[in-house]
Order: sequence, then structure tokens, then C-alpha cells
Amino acid sequence: MILYWLGMFGIAAFAITGVISSGKRDMDLFSLVVLGMVTSLGGGTIRDVILSVETVYWVKDTSYLWVAAASSVFAFFAVRFIENRQTIFHYADSFGLALFTVVATENVLRLGFSATIAVTMGVITGIAGGIIRDLLSNRAPLVLGREFYATPALLGALFIVLLNDVFPSHPYNAIYATTL
Amino acid sequence: MILYWLGMFGIAAFAITGVISSGKRDMDLFSLVVLGMVTSLGGGTIRDVILSVETVYWVKDTSYLWVAAASSVFAFFAVRFIENRQTIFHYADSFGLALFTVVATENVLRLGFSATIAVTMGVITGIAGGIIRDLLSNRAPLVLGREFYATPALLGALFIVLLNDVFPSHPYNAIYATTL
Amino acid sequence: MILYWLGMFGIAAFAITGVISSGKRDMDLFSLVVLGMVTSLGGGTIRDVILSVETVYWVKDTSYLWVAAASSVFAFFAVRFIENRQTIFHYADSFGLALFTVVATENVLRLGFSATIAVTMGVITGIAGGIIRDLLSNRAPLVLGREFYATPALLGALFIVLLNDVFPSHPYNAIYATTL
Repeated sequence: MILYWLGMFGIAAFAITGVISSGKRDMDLFSLVVLGMVTSLGGGTIRDVILSVETVYWVKDTSYLWVAAASSVFAFFAVRFIENRQTIFHYADSFGLALFTVVATENVLRLGFSATIAVTMGVITGIAGGIIRDLLSNRAPLVLGREFYATPALLGALFIVLLNDVFPSHPYNAIYATTL
Repeated sequence: MILYWLGMFGIAAFAITGVISSGKRDMDLFSLVVLGMVTSLGGGTIRDVILSVETVYWVKDTSYLWVAAASSVFAFFAVRFIENRQTIFHYADSFGLALFTVVATENVLRLGFSATIAVTMGVITGIAGGIIRDLLSNRAPLVLGREFYATPALLGALFIVLLNDVFPSHPYNAIYATTL
Repeated sequence: MILYWLGMFGIAAFAITGVISSGKRDMDLFSLVVLGMVTSLGGGTIRDVILSVETVYWVKDTSYLWVAAASSVFAFFAVRFIENRQTIFHYADSFGLALFTVVATENVLRLGFSATIAVTMGVITGIAGGIIRDLLSNRAPLVLGREFYATPALLGALFIVLLNDVFPSHPYNAIYATTL
């Protein structure tokens, strides 16, 4: 249940980064909502497709779809009134990355996959959405341009596997914040 | 059956946009055919993979593959003899977008998915192929750069869900044309 | 068994191209490993997902994952000591392309798919990883910029279907080398 809500927060955070990402151009609402939704739902979709789950998570539970859409619409209007977009972008991006990696690693472990697969899927879920966003916004992928960007995702995923029976998000978020 | 032929027309239209898209460079035939095929088959492939259908449509019925290949080869030779490539590009792109969105929304509804999922898949099928084409041709995705590009796809998909028992392509094409 | 080892060699070759690909920038180890792994595992992942196989190959047998990771780490350190990176890049890329196309076409034929599908999948497996690498490294996809790049993959895949009962890699590699 806690994982569910953490996942929803991650989706909202990534949707916002998607909208900010091309906020400079004069795009219409729906195009930006598409970008926000691809950013927030992309990583988990790739994970589910690779793991051959029966139904992709947002097809099974459309609340994810609506949260992504609502956050994007909200960000579309809110982005006009904020000054420091880049700061918010980086915070939301880090926050979404940390949450997605944690939640996905934990969920994949619960599905009975090995630690190797769980860590791999945690990293994929964390970074894939942002990579797609950067490609679509026509800028060099953040994950591959800045130093030590993907590394905290790996460390976080490994940590969760080690501390599997403790509540996982606290220690990981701490690690992430310090590495940032 | 009508849906089947409309889908084939959409594939031919998108294949042609794929070939025109990098027509300026001196590429060999097969590379352009690859680009045409990815453009025309990409959107539907992503849709089928996300919906976890048993067999992706062009693996089940290879006529789609051959239509995409033949249209690309045709466009490869025809493109040398036409003047207004950009006009044809935009018409074929709009035509393919409209057809794919309509056909996909209708098909997903028939598979028994909810209206939310059908509209989402309609939009994905309509825009994904063109996004991949623009990424591979190394230009900013059309769908995110021009105003009101993805919007008609959404409107069309919504309209089809509303008018589900009427023959769907007529009203949608009309809407699309006016929005264009 | 021979196919298995050829596949492993292809993965190592592509992982190296992924690392070299952005070797100019000052990236940290893990980001480069991600790029190497996406390049080497991407094509086969797309193939398995489209064919709806029960379990994607590197989820079933994690040795692929480890070979990709180890080759990327090795390349990360080795790349500092070599002069002619571009030469190695092109050799490894051609080598990986040839191996992947051969192995994938052969494997898909063995799974009972038609020759059309086997050739299509061979080409996808061969070129998709390199396309993703080029997109992520923010350069025009090699496969679509240079003449006659994807063509040898098609020829190779067709040849294997024709010579299905002979050991396939030899003739194909020869063709590829000559076309190069």
C-alpha cells in the first residue's frame, strides 16, 4: 500500500518534469500532457513489457493514467507562475528517480525474480522515462550527460535488495540525497 | 473489413512519410525502406506489446509487412519525380494519423477494453510511428513542436468512443480536416 | 551451442561500441555501462517482446546481462589506452551486426516462424541496438546516415534462410566483409 502511494508520487513528479522540459516552446496543452505522460509512465511500461507481466500496470489500474494526466495538466498551468523552473525540474526528477527505483526493485523482488533482475528493472524503471523525455525534447539525455546521475539509482536498488525486510524508501532516499 | 483496408491505407501513408522524411540525404534503398517500415508499423507494434496481445498484428498477418515494404520502395523511386515533397509529407502524415487513431480506437474497443484505454491506445498508435521517424531522421518530433498536432488525434479518438455504433471514420476525418 | 557463443560475442562487441560511442565525454562508469548494456541487449529485447516469447532472453539467462556489464566495464578502462577508437568502433559494430543478424534469424526460424518473420527479426536484432546507442549518444543514427549499412544485414538474413541447413555464419560473415 505504501509502495502504491510512493509510485503515484513518482508518477506525479515525473509528469511535472516532462511538462517543464519543453516549457519554453509554445506548445498546446495536449502535446505537453502527452510528454508528461510518456515521461511518467514510460519506465514502468518498459519494465512490465520486458517481464512479460499479464497486463501492463496502467492498463490494469487506470488511476495511474489519470494521475499522470492530471499532474501534467496541473503543471501546464502552474509552470507559468514559477520562476526557478530548472530547480524544480531537478528536484522532481531526482525525487521521481529515487521513488521509481525503490518501488520497482521492491515489486520485482516480490514477484519472485532474482536480485539481479530486480536491480536491473529498478534502474530501468527509474531512468527510462527521463531518457525518453530528453530524446523527445530534443536535448542530450540527462542521464548520460551529467556525472553520477544513474549511479544513485544503482546504489539505491542494491541497497533495497540488501535491506529487503526493512521498510526500504528511507535509507535509499537518504543515500540519493547525499549523492546528489 | 473496412477497418482492415483503412489500416492498410494508413500504413502506406506513413511509409511514404518515412521515406520522404530523410529524402534529402543520399541513402540507399534498404535504409529508407527500414525507415518507412518503422514509421508505419511502429505505433501499432507498441500498442500490441502494451496490450499483451498474443501475436503482434504484422507477425500474425505479414501482408502489413509487405504493404509497408512495397509502399516504401514505391516512395523511394517516386520521390525523385515530385516537386512539393513537404506538402505530400504533411498530407500523408495527417492522413495516416487520422486513419491509425480511428482504426486503433475502434479495434481496442472491440477487444473489450475500457474507453479510457481505447482512447489512449488510439492516440499512441496514431502518434508513435511519426515520433520514432522524427527521432531517427534527427529532427525535433513534429508532434511536440507544432501546435495542435496531437490534439486532433485525441479529439478523433474521443469522438469514436462517443459515436461507437455509427461508422466511425467519416465524422472523425471531418473533424481532423477542420482542425488542420 | 555455437549460436549461444556467437550471441555472447555479439553482445560483447556491441557493449564495446556503446562505451566508445560517448567516450569523449567525461561520463562516470555506471552511465557508460548503462549505455553499453542498452546497445548490446536492446535489439534482442525488442525482438523477444515483439515475438511475445514467454521470457525475454536475458531475464531467463542472466549470463547475457553479466557479459554485457563485464564487457562495458572492461571497455570503460581499456578505451583510455587505445588510439584508433573509431576503427575499433566500426569493426566491433560490423562484427556485432553480423553476429546478431545471423544468430537471431537462425533462432527465429527454429522457433517455427516463417522466413519473412525470421528475416525481419534478424534485421531488427542486428540494427536496433546500434540505433538506440546513436540516439542516446545524440548523433545521427549510423544505420540511416551511411550508405549501405543496413543492407548487409538484410542480405545476411536472406542468405541464412536460403542456406538453412548449412552452418550459417561463415558465408554471411564473408558477404558482410565484402560489402563493407
